[in-house]
Amino acid sequence: MTYLVNRRQITVEWGHCDPAGIVFNSRFFEYFDTSSWALFQAALDVQPSHLGATFDIAGIPLVGARARFMVPVRFGDAVDILSTIGAFRRSSFDVQHRLLVDGTLAVEGSETRVWVAVDEDDPAKLKSRPIPAEVIARFKAP
Amino acid sequence: MTYLVNRRQITVEWGHCDPAGIVFNSRFFEYFDTSSWALFQAALDVQPSHLGATFDIAGIPLVGARARFMVPVRFGDAVDILSTIGAFRRSSFDVQHRLLVDGTLAVEGSETRVWVAVDEDDPAKLKSRPIPAEVIARFKAP
Amino acid sequence: MTYLVNRRQITVEWGHCDPAGIVFNSRFFEYFDTSSWALFQAALDVQPSHLGATFDIAGIPLVGARARFMVPVRFGDAVDILSTIGAFRRSSFDVQHRLLVDGTLAVEGSETRVWVAVDEDDPAKLKSRPIPAEVIARFKAP
Amino acid sequence: MTYLVNRRQITVEWGHCDPAGIVFNSRFFEYFDTSSWALFQAALDVQPSHLGATFDIAGIPLVGARARFMVPVRFGDAVDILSTIGAFRRSSFDVQHRLLVDGTLAVEGSETRVWVAVDEDDPAKLKSRPIPAEVIARFKAP
Repeated sequence: MTYLVNRRQITVEWGHCDPAGIVFNSRFFEYFDTSSWALFQAALDVQPSHLGATFDIAGIPLVGARARFMVPVRFGDAVDILSTIGAFRRSSFDVQHRLLVDGTLAVEGSETRVWVAVDEDDPAKLKSRPIPAEVIARFKAP
Repeated sequence: MTYLVNRRQITVEWGHCDPAGIVFNSRFFEYFDTSSWALFQAALDVQPSHLGATFDIAGIPLVGARARFMVPVRFGDAVDILSTIGAFRRSSFDVQHRLLVDGTLAVEGSETRVWVAVDEDDPAKLKSRPIPAEVIARFKAP
Repeated sequence: MTYLVNRRQITVEWGHCDPAGIVFNSRFFEYFDTSSWALFQAALDVQPSHLGATFDIAGIPLVGARARFMVPVRFGDAVDILSTIGAFRRSSFDVQHRLLVDGTLAVEGSETRVWVAVDEDDPAKLKSRPIPAEVIARFKAP
Repeated sequence: MTYLVNRRQITVEWGHCDPAGIVFNSRFFEYFDTSSWALFQAALDVQPSHLGATFDIAGIPLVGARARFMVPVRFGDAVDILSTIGAFRRSSFDVQHRLLVDGTLAVEGSETRVWVAVDEDDPAKLKSRPIPAEVIARFKAP
């Protein structure tokens, strides 16, 4: 299966960088999160803040994340973030992110997320739900 | 009026600092926020996460914040944060924060917050409420 | 004196927002910082990361910041940030920021920054320097 | 090999949490980073900010990080963070972190870091170095 790749560009901010002058690692996970929302918006044509209401879910919370930092990224760097689905499973899915600076892969990572709704038996809890086939279909590359 | 002064100590983390090797300014406003919650806990003996339920409010949101940065604060510095009420008004109040490193005042700031509850006429909105006299009384220094 | 106004647009990210569903206050100071760098880039036509080398300075560190939060800003909001110089003094200056959502002023704030270079007498220290007249001239509105 | 386990306790702050009311994922990577520094301080009896000078290194930068989020962590939660070395290799090593809330494992993760010094042939670059045997020895559990 080939999935849609969403691309967004960011510029590294001063406050993202640590005393070594490079992006502090936690910031990459912020970049990933925002990139996942952007991928969903691109695929589903729904604003991130309306995703829950549109699909009757509580959200797409993370159950895992990982990254490899290959090349230091610095203040002012223009970073291309390419994001795509790695895999859809019954109720969870992986989002893959590649960060390029001047065409060189600097960071790659992935997130595992779950499609969850409020548990009808206990509204204080969330419960995973099957990802609708029409959602998955929207992520397929044309 | 003399109010209770709450003191907490933090150690500056690597990820709080910027490429100049000093605490990035936004982090001080994180320190202030957590210090305000700690002051409320000290005065009211209520865990911050229970504050809303205990006093039937939606929270104590910020309407203003300011800081002066006098001495650079660095990775590993042990910072004493002294927080107290600057003033209580009908439904708003000021919290003052002083950050000391080795006894030297490095940063001082204040926040203005409002005592708010859900608006009964429109549950999607918040409405300021008079700060209860018994709350104010708990902040008075012994 | 009328100074150049720089405008940039950001979209509020999920990770910028707190459990009340609104932008956490420290994030606005991140927005301000990045907006100041952008204003400098617009006025001086120098990339922020080259500012120090270009003008033989160590940076433009903050000595003060303040904000007023008037309207809650939420996940997904498109925010226009308008930044301009409030005043130039001998070696310090103010940057003013206004954040608008759908044309409504939601947050306004300012930063006070200093034009500093490494102290020749003690390279471990920074020393304020007069802001060059040609720098100030570049900020004047056409 | 059994390595020293360092334990520190933190309380989850308001600004660490997202609109779902749980800790935003990037914050866990901040917790990990600070926990790694604390582990090094416990093992080597050197303040983190003096680590570079003491061992003639430029730092211990990350080349990888990962986490699994098993149980939501919320505002005000007291979190025990247990950190230990997963493995020492020639010039890189893994740090493992387990976060417990009320004795329940909520998050586990690891970082891969490299022992690096300034490259003598090109001072603008960093180069991995063998981790000294005496450093490794200090991490062994008594």
